[in-house]
Amino acid sequence: MSTKPISRYPVPDLKDLPSDMRERMLAVQEKAGFVPNVFLALAHRPAEWRAFFAYHDALLEKEGGLSKAEREMIVVATSGANQCQYCVVAHGAILRIRAKNPLVADQVAINHHEADITPRQKAMLDFAMKVALESERVDEADFAALKGHGFSDDDIWDIAAITALFALSNRMANFTAMRPNDEFYLMGRVPK
Amino acid sequence: MSTKPISRYPVPDLKDLPSDMRERMLAVQEKAGFVPNVFLALAHRPAEWRAFFAYHDALLEKEGGLSKAEREMIVVATSGANQCQYCVVAHGAILRIRAKNPLVADQVAINHHEADITPRQKAMLDFAMKVALESERVDEADFAALKGHGFSDDDIWDIAAITALFALSNRMANFTAMRPNDEFYLMGRVPK
Amino acid sequence: MSTKPISRYPVPDLKDLPSDMRERMLAVQEKAGFVPNVFLALAHRPAEWRAFFAYHDALLEKEGGLSKAEREMIVVATSGANQCQYCVVAHGAILRIRAKNPLVADQVAINHHEADITPRQKAMLDFAMKVALESERVDEADFAALKGHGFSDDDIWDIAAITALFALSNRMANFTAMRPNDEFYLMGRVPK
Amino acid sequence: MSTKPISRYPVPDLKDLPSDMRERMLAVQEKAGFVPNVFLALAHRPAEWRAFFAYHDALLEKEGGLSKAEREMIVVATSGANQCQYCVVAHGAILRIRAKNPLVADQVAINHHEADITPRQKAMLDFAMKVALESERVDEADFAALKGHGFSDDDIWDIAAITALFALSNRMANFTAMRPNDEFYLMGRVPK
Amino acid sequence: MSTKPISRYPVPDLKDLPSDMRERMLAVQEKAGFVPNVFLALAHRPAEWRAFFAYHDALLEKEGGLSKAEREMIVVATSGANQCQYCVVAHGAILRIRAKNPLVADQVAINHHEADITPRQKAMLDFAMKVALESERVDEADFAALKGHGFSDDDIWDIAAITALFALSNRMANFTAMRPNDEFYLMGRVPK
Amino acid sequence: MSTKPISRYPVPDLKDLPSDMRERMLAVQEKAGFVPNVFLALAHRPAEWRAFFAYHDALLEKEGGLSKAEREMIVVATSGANQCQYCVVAHGAILRIRAKNPLVADQVAINHHEADITPRQKAMLDFAMKVALESERVDEADFAALKGHGFSDDDIWDIAAITALFALSNRMANFTAMRPNDEFYLMGRVPK
Repeated sequence: MSTKPISRYPVPDLKDLPSDMRERMLAVQEKAGFVPNVFLALAHRPAEWRAFFAYHDALLEKEGGLSKAEREMIVVATSGANQCQYCVVAHGAILRIRAKNPLVADQVAINHHEADITPRQKAMLDFAMKVALESERVDEADFAALKGHGFSDDDIWDIAAITALFALSNRMANFTAMRPNDEFYLMGRVPK
Repeated sequence: MSTKPISRYPVPDLKDLPSDMRERMLAVQEKAGFVPNVFLALAHRPAEWRAFFAYHDALLEKEGGLSKAEREMIVVATSGANQCQYCVVAHGAILRIRAKNPLVADQVAINHHEADITPRQKAMLDFAMKVALESERVDEADFAALKGHGFSDDDIWDIAAITALFALSNRMANFTAMRPNDEFYLMGRVPK
Repeated sequence: MSTKPISRYPVPDLKDLPSDMRERMLAVQEKAGFVPNVFLALAHRPAEWRAFFAYHDALLEKEGGLSKAEREMIVVATSGANQCQYCVVAHGAILRIRAKNPLVADQVAINHHEADITPRQKAMLDFAMKVALESERVDEADFAALKGHGFSDDDIWDIAAITALFALSNRMANFTAMRPNDEFYLMGRVPK
Repeated sequence: MSTKPISRYPVPDLKDLPSDMRERMLAVQEKAGFVPNVFLALAHRPAEWRAFFAYHDALLEKEGGLSKAEREMIVVATSGANQCQYCVVAHGAILRIRAKNPLVADQVAINHHEADITPRQKAMLDFAMKVALESERVDEADFAALKGHGFSDDDIWDIAAITALFALSNRMANFTAMRPNDEFYLMGRVPK
Repeated sequence: MSTKPISRYPVPDLKDLPSDMRERMLAVQEKAGFVPNVFLALAHRPAEWRAFFAYHDALLEKEGGLSKAEREMIVVATSGANQCQYCVVAHGAILRIRAKNPLVADQVAINHHEADITPRQKAMLDFAMKVALESERVDEADFAALKGHGFSDDDIWDIAAITALFALSNRMANFTAMRPNDEFYLMGRVPK
Repeated sequence: MSTKPISRYPVPDLKDLPSDMRERMLAVQEKAGFVPNVFLALAHRPAEWRAFFAYHDALLEKEGGLSKAEREMIVVATSGANQCQYCVVAHGAILRIRAKNPLVADQVAINHHEADITPRQKAMLDFAMKVALESERVDEADFAALKGHGFSDDDIWDIAAITALFALSNRMANFTAMRPNDEFYLMGRVPK
């Protein structure tokens, strides 16, 4: 386990946190075996922490036209474009697990055009990259292209909203120099 | 009042919304004289709506080292860089009112280097623009520069977090083609 | 009235100027109620001043396939892309007046794709932005697209030439830190 | 002599032009041996033609803190950045002649950092490139750097204004596909 | 083992290759357990293959002021900037092994500013990124900065030349859609 | 003949070089009348020198679907984009000679869209520029477009590989401040 700082800012002790935050972290720890550093680093600001995870759960834990693996693909691809170390490493791990695919996260993070994904998923990531990097140019042709791949209006909202949430998250992680837990690097790479 | 659509997505009627959302909107309406379209357009997704406004209030309505006008400056400058029509127009109005200055919002939206603001505020906006446009390059020198202008670590978090929240908000507004209320354009321009 | 400097360079007194320049300025003052600062700031160099306004009048005061409001739209959109405070604020005012529309200038300055303008005007501004930002890529397909919207070859010259003139003007205004007159900010916003 | 078109637009015959324009062209022809195509291509619009050459002469034919060769260096460097074939080829020829140096034009057009010019000239071109490519960022530090190399405020105006004029000129030449006269390519390369 | 194509171009059989190429590949296979796809994909052109690996060995297998792990860091960082999937994945594996560090490759590929490397290594990668992305701006100040970290002139050549070789290699891999061997993804991640 | 340094690094004397390198240089000298500086500057590293010229000869001296002039066009266009003074000047000379055209090199270096070349050659250079500047986006549509102009798969490899080799070469020349021989500037400009 690394002893390097996980944020430029002070990180509270679990025991000093409000009970709702602590309980959420303990639940994650029980499931994953460790507390992902984003929970600890953002806990410096409890009100923002609660809003962030409410937003996150509304978009990433949802059932719908996008699979959970596809939701993570969006995170990994756009976080790669924003050079966010925490998000690529941590969500790369989640993507490998959700997609049951040890290769796809590294592929998507570097260049989604060359990843082992479907044409529909490439169209999804093309749009996510446009929202991430030049949202002012989104237009009706983008909607038409996505509908041609079977995405509904609500699926398209999900793609854009996940991208937008990680536009926020990437900037917070980069600005605080948030460090990914060492555990993430290997998760989902070795068949159980 | 414009009858143009305010979003690419369906906009719910106030009467069909959950009561917490409706009450918040009625309170804003009472104060401002109208419901800003961001409340209506984002209401397409109640869970995300609640997270967004919780995040917003935690950062924009706060007292602290940054004045409320300065918080709005950050929104206007970075939304200008992201070419977000809704956010520049709506938050430009709020900035004019909070700063009691009819000129500063247009100046900051176009080029903050030439705005009628203090050197401390220029340093604040230089940092906000870096977080908005190249957060992967934030480093210790940025923190040192801001501290030289008297910003505390928590002020710096506020600058970055407001910028990050509007990285999200700008992308949502651009993607939904969110339309600013006509009322915003004139607010704060004419002395009462 | 602001007492802030209007240029990094000395600004001549009206009474010290050659009579042709003084008369032009007095005529504008009589019509607008004030002398726009561009007349004063550029007067530091009389020969360049005369060339600039001759060029300006040949393109902006002309009748032809483009309305005067459309000519100002080109100025506002490309000056927004060049982050020129003077030109966005001053020509934004003129655009509001010529278009008899209090909203369109702010819309076009931030993101013309989302402005209340016609598809023909969007095509006009798409081309103006290409001339402003990557003129080396203008090709026959651009001419064909514009002709499909009914623009003649001479209209296309007007679009490009207005853009080119403000490529010059934006750089002069940015370099001299030319300050917009306070009066411009409110012009055309309140119905008479 | 090439028979390729010199502009996307009609080019008037010398004999059909107003006498002031024709006389200027004949004078240039007598001196250079040919009429540079910019005179013919821009003659499609006489009023703009007159304004352009008045502006040009006020800045390029002037005596002052910058030599005439240095004025041409600014044109060549910034026209290279704007990928303007006419301006690089035609003004490259003039620069070779005015600098009595057969190498400097190609060097400056490709990468002025590696050209056979003085540190003062490099500082001049660094500033010209900033005005050409990101004029919104010009600030007091730029003026201080130039003054450290002995440039006066009026020299700095000349650097910026020549750059601004060719921001216009490059866009006109690119948009009209203006073709450099074949004669320019060899001018100033062979010692007489 | 993946059965997906490893190149857009035909890939020769080992048995059909000239003996020098086949022997090199068999030697690598004996050491690594598999033949890295770059050997097979580039074998479409034997003369270029020989030149490429001669260049590679001269720079990557060399002893000198840079450790072999540092040489691979340069490859991984600049290949990340060029979005080259093959080079990031394959050289990421080699970097993990040479640095005996399971984390550093992913860190350097995403954002070297936040990697677990020394200030000297950050300076090395800052320079490599400049050579990769804007080599026309390399100047004496870059050499001085590197010498301040103890790099000799020949070390600096190594940094630049490795970067230059992978500018070539990244473009070949991207253009041929070269696929990394599945084996690379896990190499060096699990302690033996 | 210039006495300016031709590289930031020491340049060996011909007499001190291994015989294979010296013989190659003497052969070039006999043919061209001088030793191009790239031979001397890269000789600082004999193993890299041999790999570089082996690579060069395999791609530039080859017969095939691309003429030798077309191969040089690729070098000149992409070296212009990379602002490499040595490569534009030296290969511009070779292009003039191989194309028997005194104008085409300057045209292609500044803006290949406006050069006196065929539509097929423009498509070739469009692709070369994509490989030079954004190789991660090369896709099947690029191959289809080139085949529509009659290029074979092996011709396309040649275009990409020449571009890739000069991605390397441009970076080496820029980093060493490699100086073009004065002789190149005039070569191929004057009819014999």
